[in-house]
Amino acid sequence: MSSARGTAESMGRRAATALERLRAERPLVHHITNLVVMNDTANVTLLLGASPVMAHAAEEVEEMVSLAGALVLNPGTLERAWIEVMLRAGRRARERSIPVVLDPVGAGATTFRTETNRMLLERVRPTIVRGNAGEIGALCGAGGAVRGVDSVGDLPDAVAAARGAARAWAAVVAITGRSDQVSDGTRSYAVDNGHAWLTTLTGTGCMATTAIAAFAAVEPDGMIAALAGLAAFGLAAERAAGRCSGPGSFKVALFDELHGLTPEILAAGARIRGPL
Amino acid sequence: MSSARGTAESMGRRAATALERLRAERPLVHHITNLVVMNDTANVTLLLGASPVMAHAAEEVEEMVSLAGALVLNPGTLERAWIEVMLRAGRRARERSIPVVLDPVGAGATTFRTETNRMLLERVRPTIVRGNAGEIGALCGAGGAVRGVDSVGDLPDAVAAARGAARAWAAVVAITGRSDQVSDGTRSYAVDNGHAWLTTLTGTGCMATTAIAAFAAVEPDGMIAALAGLAAFGLAAERAAGRCSGPGSFKVALFDELHGLTPEILAAGARIRGPL
Amino acid sequence: MSSARGTAESMGRRAATALERLRAERPLVHHITNLVVMNDTANVTLLLGASPVMAHAAEEVEEMVSLAGALVLNPGTLERAWIEVMLRAGRRARERSIPVVLDPVGAGATTFRTETNRMLLERVRPTIVRGNAGEIGALCGAGGAVRGVDSVGDLPDAVAAARGAARAWAAVVAITGRSDQVSDGTRSYAVDNGHAWLTTLTGTGCMATTAIAAFAAVEPDGMIAALAGLAAFGLAAERAAGRCSGPGSFKVALFDELHGLTPEILAAGARIRGPL
Repeated sequence: MSSARGTAESMGRRAATALERLRAERPLVHHITNLVVMNDTANVTLLLGASPVMAHAAEEVEEMVSLAGALVLNPGTLERAWIEVMLRAGRRARERSIPVVLDPVGAGATTFRTETNRMLLERVRPTIVRGNAGEIGALCGAGGAVRGVDSVGDLPDAVAAARGAARAWAAVVAITGRSDQVSDGTRSYAVDNGHAWLTTLTGTGCMATTAIAAFAAVEPDGMIAALAGLAAFGLAAERAAGRCSGPGSFKVALFDELHGLTPEILAAGARIRGPL
Repeated sequence: MSSARGTAESMGRRAATALERLRAERPLVHHITNLVVMNDTANVTLLLGASPVMAHAAEEVEEMVSLAGALVLNPGTLERAWIEVMLRAGRRARERSIPVVLDPVGAGATTFRTETNRMLLERVRPTIVRGNAGEIGALCGAGGAVRGVDSVGDLPDAVAAARGAARAWAAVVAITGRSDQVSDGTRSYAVDNGHAWLTTLTGTGCMATTAIAAFAAVEPDGMIAALAGLAAFGLAAERAAGRCSGPGSFKVALFDELHGLTPEILAAGARIRGPL
Repeated sequence: MSSARGTAESMGRRAATALERLRAERPLVHHITNLVVMNDTANVTLLLGASPVMAHAAEEVEEMVSLAGALVLNPGTLERAWIEVMLRAGRRARERSIPVVLDPVGAGATTFRTETNRMLLERVRPTIVRGNAGEIGALCGAGGAVRGVDSVGDLPDAVAAARGAARAWAAVVAITGRSDQVSDGTRSYAVDNGHAWLTTLTGTGCMATTAIAAFAAVEPDGMIAALAGLAAFGLAAERAAGRCSGPGSFKVALFDELHGLTPEILAAGARIRGPL
């Protein structure tokens, strides 16, 4: 993966161009994901302009992922049978140079989750990994704590943690939180889009992962895809926050805004900082 | 199945009468359906006046379907164990003359999906089949293409495809799209209700299938049930489109409108054309 | 479990205090629940101030529940493999004095559901059981009927049924309906909060169970936890009903109101009657 090294401003422009491509090409995004967020992440895929498919049968995942522009692996409601399926789909995707985005939900909470996510990192070698501070911290040994699927507290140095994890895993790593940190091991950027309402709903981290995957399906540079996905999702959240009266109406407005996002709005509203 | 042969206007009146019966009788609609749409289709069932139950354990599906007014089979997130369960429930339903509505989600996308849906068609012999152009086209050899679970392009002749599939499967077949085609192999009708917002959300095809099944639970003529389900769902979408600002608020309004639909509104708003 | 024996008014105050603690402590609530409501119940958990985790892998449920403040067992879309998992998690929870809340979805509808729920009652010995009249009636032999997952009609004497079931199961038992009955076998209370819109949406019973579990994670007295959960959920529904135009907008408003609930609002609005 060749990493972009542009200014923050140029990264915003490239994010906007990627959104244009996403809406024109409507790539298929194959999800093997958790039972809690399947509906929401399918919708986020559609709202951004891509086409979602959720498929986890051993008999079809290799065929399905071969048709896709990107693969999401999200073991948030893991059971044993799904691990083998994730491995198969992930390996086929890598063989075909289809980007794989891993969301290590709840890594650090139980031994089973930590070990399964470590195994997926090693054996699939995902293109992009997005998690909260606790999850990424637990997986790369940078500290951080997880309770259930929520991060507890911040990492002492999220920029360094993202950079270290990216090097260890040869992946673009995004640590999302109040500010999102993205690194490919060499260059690092931050995305300051987003809103506190996102923490009041379940699955918003998973939705951010899906947004990244949708962009990765049209944008070969994983760094751009990650920045674009996080900026687009966070910007839609900011715009939604202005017209809601609680988490329920926020989610409705978030879906409206994701659909209404244009390359122009994204170029103007993306708040990317860096290189750090 | 005796096919209705009335004018489009009389079909609209019969749809309205079926809605009246649906709201009075509150039949149970048993779903064996995909993980993405379970919540939405349960809600659509309730909003139309019926009572949903989602059950897929081998130990109970035959007992459960025996209590139901209709059965939905929707293999949208198929795994092997569910196929046997769908067969069992489907056969029991047919033995008891309980209508079975098949939604062949993603047929044409992978060999596994195409073959499983063909097998369900042969061994269950569903009363009604609803799919998009790509799915029905793939299953009956009329052309059409599927990417993931979305149809790509239109069939060269959807009326002929629906008629041919209906004859081949001895079922009422509905091909939904900009205009919906419904045929029982002898007579064919079109339903022009609906709205483009429906394409911006996941699971709206599955919801249409559920609407058909809810009507089939009270209306023995499968043609009327299919027309009523599609007209009711599409009309609610039209009414919702007038008061939304994106897919999020459209879905909220769609649920409000499905609940608010009366036989009078349906009789006045159903846009059924035919016999073709 | 020591049962509260206060006046209805003092129970309202204790409910408000429990909400204060819930929002401060943000306990983890582990759900092993059905596929239809996972997203909604995760959101209800968050909206009330707790932290949800959905986990059902045999490899991790005992470790996960050990980290939790409460466990929800909801076999609403049961399959065989999940039963053993519910037993394991339930037993570990009881060993650690972590409250277990059982929602016997659809008990009475099929033999499999009735027997599985009886077995969970016997072998887990849940702290609190919440069901509709049909479900509790079927399990404790007090009459009542279930069609699918919905109760048909009322129990001849819901207060007596709740009391009898509570004694038989050594649990706090809540029978929800137009008015909710809660008993620990000695003292009984009613909660009159709630709104008819709740019956137009799927999973609102499951959401009420989750609300009870969230309170049980911070409130050791199961009677207070049940009353607080039902009053809080029902009060949010009443407030939401004032600003909606159907079930879709009601659900949005319900989520807003659950998040906006304060101890003061709950203290003023809880409509608890008793001891009966």
